[in-house]
Amino acid sequence: MAAETETILPPGSTIGIVGGGQLARMLAIAASQYGLKVHIYAPEANSPAFEVSAAHTCASYEDEEKLRQFAAAVDVITYEFENIPAAAVSLLSNMKPLHPNAEALSTTQDRLSEKTFISSLGIETAPFIAVPDSGALDDAITQIGLPAVLKTTRFGYDGKGQIIIRTEADIPAARKLADSAVCILEGFVPFREEVSVIATRNLSGAFSSFDLCVNEHKNHILDITRLPANVKAETEIQAISIAQRLANALDYVGTLAVEMFLVEDKGKEKLVVNEIAPRVHNSGHWTIEGAVTSQFAQHIRAICNWPLGQTQRTGRIKMRNLIGHDINDWLEIVTDEQAHLHLYGKEEAREGRKMGHVTWVFPDKMAQ
Amino acid sequence: MAAETETILPPGSTIGIVGGGQLARMLAIAASQYGLKVHIYAPEANSPAFEVSAAHTCASYEDEEKLRQFAAAVDVITYEFENIPAAAVSLLSNMKPLHPNAEALSTTQDRLSEKTFISSLGIETAPFIAVPDSGALDDAITQIGLPAVLKTTRFGYDGKGQIIIRTEADIPAARKLADSAVCILEGFVPFREEVSVIATRNLSGAFSSFDLCVNEHKNHILDITRLPANVKAETEIQAISIAQRLANALDYVGTLAVEMFLVEDKGKEKLVVNEIAPRVHNSGHWTIEGAVTSQFAQHIRAICNWPLGQTQRTGRIKMRNLIGHDINDWLEIVTDEQAHLHLYGKEEAREGRKMGHVTWVFPDKMAQ
Repeated sequence: MAAETETILPPGSTIGIVGGGQLARMLAIAASQYGLKVHIYAPEANSPAFEVSAAHTCASYEDEEKLRQFAAAVDVITYEFENIPAAAVSLLSNMKPLHPNAEALSTTQDRLSEKTFISSLGIETAPFIAVPDSGALDDAITQIGLPAVLKTTRFGYDGKGQIIIRTEADIPAARKLADSAVCILEGFVPFREEVSVIATRNLSGAFSSFDLCVNEHKNHILDITRLPANVKAETEIQAISIAQRLANALDYVGTLAVEMFLVEDKGKEKLVVNEIAPRVHNSGHWTIEGAVTSQFAQHIRAICNWPLGQTQRTGRIKMRNLIGHDINDWLEIVTDEQAHLHLYGKEEAREGRKMGHVTWVFPDKMAQ
Repeated sequence: MAAETETILPPGSTIGIVGGGQLARMLAIAASQYGLKVHIYAPEANSPAFEVSAAHTCASYEDEEKLRQFAAAVDVITYEFENIPAAAVSLLSNMKPLHPNAEALSTTQDRLSEKTFISSLGIETAPFIAVPDSGALDDAITQIGLPAVLKTTRFGYDGKGQIIIRTEADIPAARKLADSAVCILEGFVPFREEVSVIATRNLSGAFSSFDLCVNEHKNHILDITRLPANVKAETEIQAISIAQRLANALDYVGTLAVEMFLVEDKGKEKLVVNEIAPRVHNSGHWTIEGAVTSQFAQHIRAICNWPLGQTQRTGRIKMRNLIGHDINDWLEIVTDEQAHLHLYGKEEAREGRKMGHVTWVFPDKMAQ
């Protein structure tokens, strides 16, 4: 589909989005502001993105007939989550341009192939080793040492499918995880901060990054993102350069997030890549109000082969996720007239469920 | 419905919007960011707002059954245009809270009742006189003098339904207009600038205004809006105070626009009110990127009885409308990485049709 993907998609075109959660919802809103139509494909009834899209298909990712009809109805296809079954990806990408491309997706879907890919570029990751089954666990622990983290190679998010092994007492639970799925054992990185780069690359290879985000997690779920990052200027430049090298090597088109650990090593700052999310990312939600162009708008521009927008930050940023019953604070939040409240339209506030987020943009010290 | 209207509508509620054009589209986007659902009622198939709303009813404003079903399906009703038939307004407002209220709508739907209302508050308008039919035209001209503007009292917008009478040669065409509809003759105001106030009042009576907008028209259609206005500080304060007095007197709930002429009279600046738009307004589109809270978000907050957001301007503003074939410049516009392009998803670029707009937010001199 190479020739076809290089055309510039005009307003009025239809963007197909696989997945119907909040990321798809915010992508749909960004697309609609450019006069683009959106068609969502998602299996869950009441998907948050259905409410803001011109069309939707509510069907399983295994339904080939529905996938074919969806692909036929759109001009370009993108997705909001990386765990799309390979058969669906193959079917869709054979019918219409798919961005980010299928190889970028399969590389980042699997922690082992992802870390192998990152290392192959000479970019530092945590030490890692494959644990195909529980029989391989003891040897892996011997090589990596403790503490270490055992993770399933696929389908993990928000701390699901991982176990920290601090002492031998944690090994039985780890063995159970290794019995249930193919795993990877990673050395524990003693980080000062968790940071992320949100960046975009378009079909013509143009690259653009937002400022470095500092992230705080609670119960393995992103809680707070803050900018600017309190790091050395060269560290921020290096972080963005890592994201660009990864995007180029993946021939990536769209917005991606690279999560990194910031490690302080003998007084020097060092970056260790944790993982790549081949999509818009929770730590980039602040860009809706806090940057000239949002990560969502950039993604839409990239996959339509439009020139990228300006990514300059407009102030000091704090973004807070509203998880589960945090949503009950909505009225208190809108009473803070500086707070930008975003709710995703989810009906049930289950524990650990991302219900919305709030962004504050404070005047930057430099601008005062 | 007084008791009912004073409740605070929580996220998850459904906003009914009458009218499906770009104003409804941008209201729907603002509502969805707060986790509110939107149901659009509009007679035109392919209404721009249908594409971003959870539900829509495509039916005539005379279809009582459909209006009733619409009202039953929503929690609160608002509208994007003032020419809704009185019977529809009455039916809807008897079933659900309608904001802005029916009297505010009927007062501003008719240029004669609107100007009479404004004058009754001691606020200056152009001199005006009713021209119920063409027989009354000569007397009216004698009283008002030339130049003057003859306007139909209802259904006029973007220069439609009005004729400037500069000399006696223009009178035959004016007579024809007065034969076709009830008219009003207004004295011509020799203005230095056309300005507008976009302001919002919520159910609790809280009032909030954006900065004064300066508007340039082309072929009677808004072309450019700029901020800040180059007027004396007390003039801007007075303009906002006029908007507040009008909103209070109308017991107005929602965002409104007050269009005014800025007249220079013996070295002093004077404001003459031209008209009130009981809705979000084209000269307020810049607030999406140029103010902390947009006029659309403020309108949604007001009709849900939420506290209003901050209206502070974030820079120097230029907003340009894309009319008809202006839309063909879209690629050039997105190549300007500071330009915020908005397109409304309209299929046919007819002459005079509002297809989109562009907003630029430049660093304010004060912030540099």
